[in-house]
Amino acid sequence: MQRILTRELSSHVGERVRLAGWIHQRRQLSRVTFLILRDAGGLAQIVVEPDGSTAELDSETVVEVEGEVVANSQAPGGLEVRGLRITVLATPTERPPIELRRPELKEQLPTILDFAPLALCHPRERAKFELAAATLAGYREALDRLGFTEIQTPKIVASATEGGADVFGVDYFGREAYLAQSPQFYKQVMVGVFERVYETGPVFRAEPHETARHLAEYVSLDAEVGFIDDHRTVMGFARDAVAGMVEGVSTRAARAVDLLGVEVPDVHEEIPVLEFLEAQELMERATGERVVGELDLAPAHERWLGDWARREHGSDFLFVAGYPMAKRPFYTHPDPERPAYSRSFDLLFRGLELITGGQRLHLYEDYVSAMEERGLPLEPFDGYLQAFRYGMPPHGGFAVGLERFVARLTGAANVRETTLFPRDRRRLTP
Amino acid sequence: MQRILTRELSSHVGERVRLAGWIHQRRQLSRVTFLILRDAGGLAQIVVEPDGSTAELDSETVVEVEGEVVANSQAPGGLEVRGLRITVLATPTERPPIELRRPELKEQLPTILDFAPLALCHPRERAKFELAAATLAGYREALDRLGFTEIQTPKIVASATEGGADVFGVDYFGREAYLAQSPQFYKQVMVGVFERVYETGPVFRAEPHETARHLAEYVSLDAEVGFIDDHRTVMGFARDAVAGMVEGVSTRAARAVDLLGVEVPDVHEEIPVLEFLEAQELMERATGERVVGELDLAPAHERWLGDWARREHGSDFLFVAGYPMAKRPFYTHPDPERPAYSRSFDLLFRGLELITGGQRLHLYEDYVSAMEERGLPLEPFDGYLQAFRYGMPPHGGFAVGLERFVARLTGAANVRETTLFPRDRRRLTP
Repeated sequence: MQRILTRELSSHVGERVRLAGWIHQRRQLSRVTFLILRDAGGLAQIVVEPDGSTAELDSETVVEVEGEVVANSQAPGGLEVRGLRITVLATPTERPPIELRRPELKEQLPTILDFAPLALCHPRERAKFELAAATLAGYREALDRLGFTEIQTPKIVASATEGGADVFGVDYFGREAYLAQSPQFYKQVMVGVFERVYETGPVFRAEPHETARHLAEYVSLDAEVGFIDDHRTVMGFARDAVAGMVEGVSTRAARAVDLLGVEVPDVHEEIPVLEFLEAQELMERATGERVVGELDLAPAHERWLGDWARREHGSDFLFVAGYPMAKRPFYTHPDPERPAYSRSFDLLFRGLELITGGQRLHLYEDYVSAMEERGLPLEPFDGYLQAFRYGMPPHGGFAVGLERFVARLTGAANVRETTLFPRDRRRLTP
Repeated sequence: MQRILTRELSSHVGERVRLAGWIHQRRQLSRVTFLILRDAGGLAQIVVEPDGSTAELDSETVVEVEGEVVANSQAPGGLEVRGLRITVLATPTERPPIELRRPELKEQLPTILDFAPLALCHPRERAKFELAAATLAGYREALDRLGFTEIQTPKIVASATEGGADVFGVDYFGREAYLAQSPQFYKQVMVGVFERVYETGPVFRAEPHETARHLAEYVSLDAEVGFIDDHRTVMGFARDAVAGMVEGVSTRAARAVDLLGVEVPDVHEEIPVLEFLEAQELMERATGERVVGELDLAPAHERWLGDWARREHGSDFLFVAGYPMAKRPFYTHPDPERPAYSRSFDLLFRGLELITGGQRLHLYEDYVSAMEERGLPLEPFDGYLQAFRYGMPPHGGFAVGLERFVARLTGAANVRETTLFPRDRRRLTP
């Protein structure tokens, strides 16, 4: 008999079926035992009559169940399975340290992360990663539609992307190498080949701080596009990518959205835009705090601007454009009319930076000047600079942190809650 | 005026259009200049009348062209553009060391790899990575359809997957860590969460040898599935994954297939299967070479078996199942009836190992015995073993090397030819 999933039970009422999964919970009454069976699709109630021994069926025992599907208005979902034959496939060797049967896990985050293989089995934990998978699929679909080509670029590199800070060293056959902080250089180079490219993959940051929004390794959704007018062209693509991600969540992870009570945001056709200076002036006028002249936005400012966008434009998203050059990497394109400011942008999602992007330099001589100005040697970047020596069009791009998007979507306070096996200064396992 | 791609010209005959791209080739006749413009979509011929100066338009100059589309049976594709206005966006600072205008690159592989940013712009080079993108998309589509969930697992890990060999060390905040040789442990753990999972991402092997089929970093398409009968169930999924990859190539990369003259393989509903011993006996009988008793297949044996499958079954693919345990990793499930042999398999594609897979151990006590037998300490694997302590179903999985598949598909002799920026013992740039 072909195994079915618990979520398929409703098409099999009155039939004998085979299920398989984990004992999520066991309730022993005097004359009957109720088992909640968990599989990839959900939960189902199994009723075992007195003669069936269930003594060995502790939580997390892996079983196959054959039984008859019957309607029972008292059962969760209105259906239950009269268990006729239960076969044990694997027995836990110790009592699980996390109680999966609760509607929400009660354990603290460090415990949940230490026992991730177990904690992730909880339906609410699992649902967050269904959202992640759906987000990723939606991102790819959106960029595929827009004519982007997916690429894979190396993660072991000869030089740090953004200078020497926050980079992990690798022993590369006795030579010093690094883990890529981003696919930045390679995706730019690939604009010369495909014009529009994207990559979804791991990036590595040796973040010295422990914050709720930084990880030593995360999944970056990167895109880069050629023949643009300026950063506004890139912002249009970033908008479409986010719309795709949200669409992916709605269409592919409806059950997870439901279970977690996610408020799926609207992505307006035109996301509101504030110039960096304009944003500072707005905050200064409204709050009295002196912010004009600062070179970046603090997290509290991003939150304020997020609230403003919600209030004034009914938008969960807000572009801030034209950041000062001083805080942006060397490949950033300055605004020709105000060279201290850049053609770069951030996209805030509910008051948190979700995307950073902008136009890049594209002329070889501009790279040479920009790197000399910052005291960067040219030689370690030779493979990158090669592309500009042989002709590159005006281009730009952006990057989205996958875990950060899902955290914002689910209201998770810490990005570790939306990472399967997070890595930070102190955490290297599981 | 909205820019169009060269491949869209045929819908604009008689119209004025705007194109953009690179000067692929310039032919100067006495009264007229022919420019071949290259963009992401292909090539187009631009005709420039005598009064238009084209002296500065060297190869790889980035330009915008406005002009009128006219039919000309002499022109490639039957169309050309009468250039009316040409704007230079970027000028190469030196003469390209690779001649992109040739129908096929003449340079040797090391030169092509050294100048990858340029070489990849050649239509035939580019086409290989269109095949790669299409393969990846097809793989994901196939597994999505089969109810698999995409996951992202950490690449910085505390312990080497397969023991200590071939692993890169990372300085992780002053602690010793490693680059993941595969997502093996994590994908198995995630079977406990989603039952069916896949991951597409980089893996890292400190391969000490320089061979035409090994890289220090490559893209692995991994899958793992729970509640299986044995390795035969896994082979069914591996077959479906490969069928999806081939389908992806046919439907998404038809132009690249055409340009490269790729013979797209048939994936039979039932791929032929040989037992390992049976394969050895077959070869021994046919060739007289003594191979029965050897613990693995040599590359020459794989080629022989590939030819045999082609000849006897008209199949480009052949499963070899039941390899000796001695050559397989500790998590491999033995054949209960012949414990020296495993429930593992390889899938050969045109005589080269493309996929390795099999059933894994799923009982905690079996892991403890297997690791003790091989002298492996348990403690470094604790995060992994946790999953088995709390109950795991019978499961198995497989992995496909993306670059190797595309190499086999295109007949490339070296897997570096189908890797954007390959990494090996000597190569860390570009």
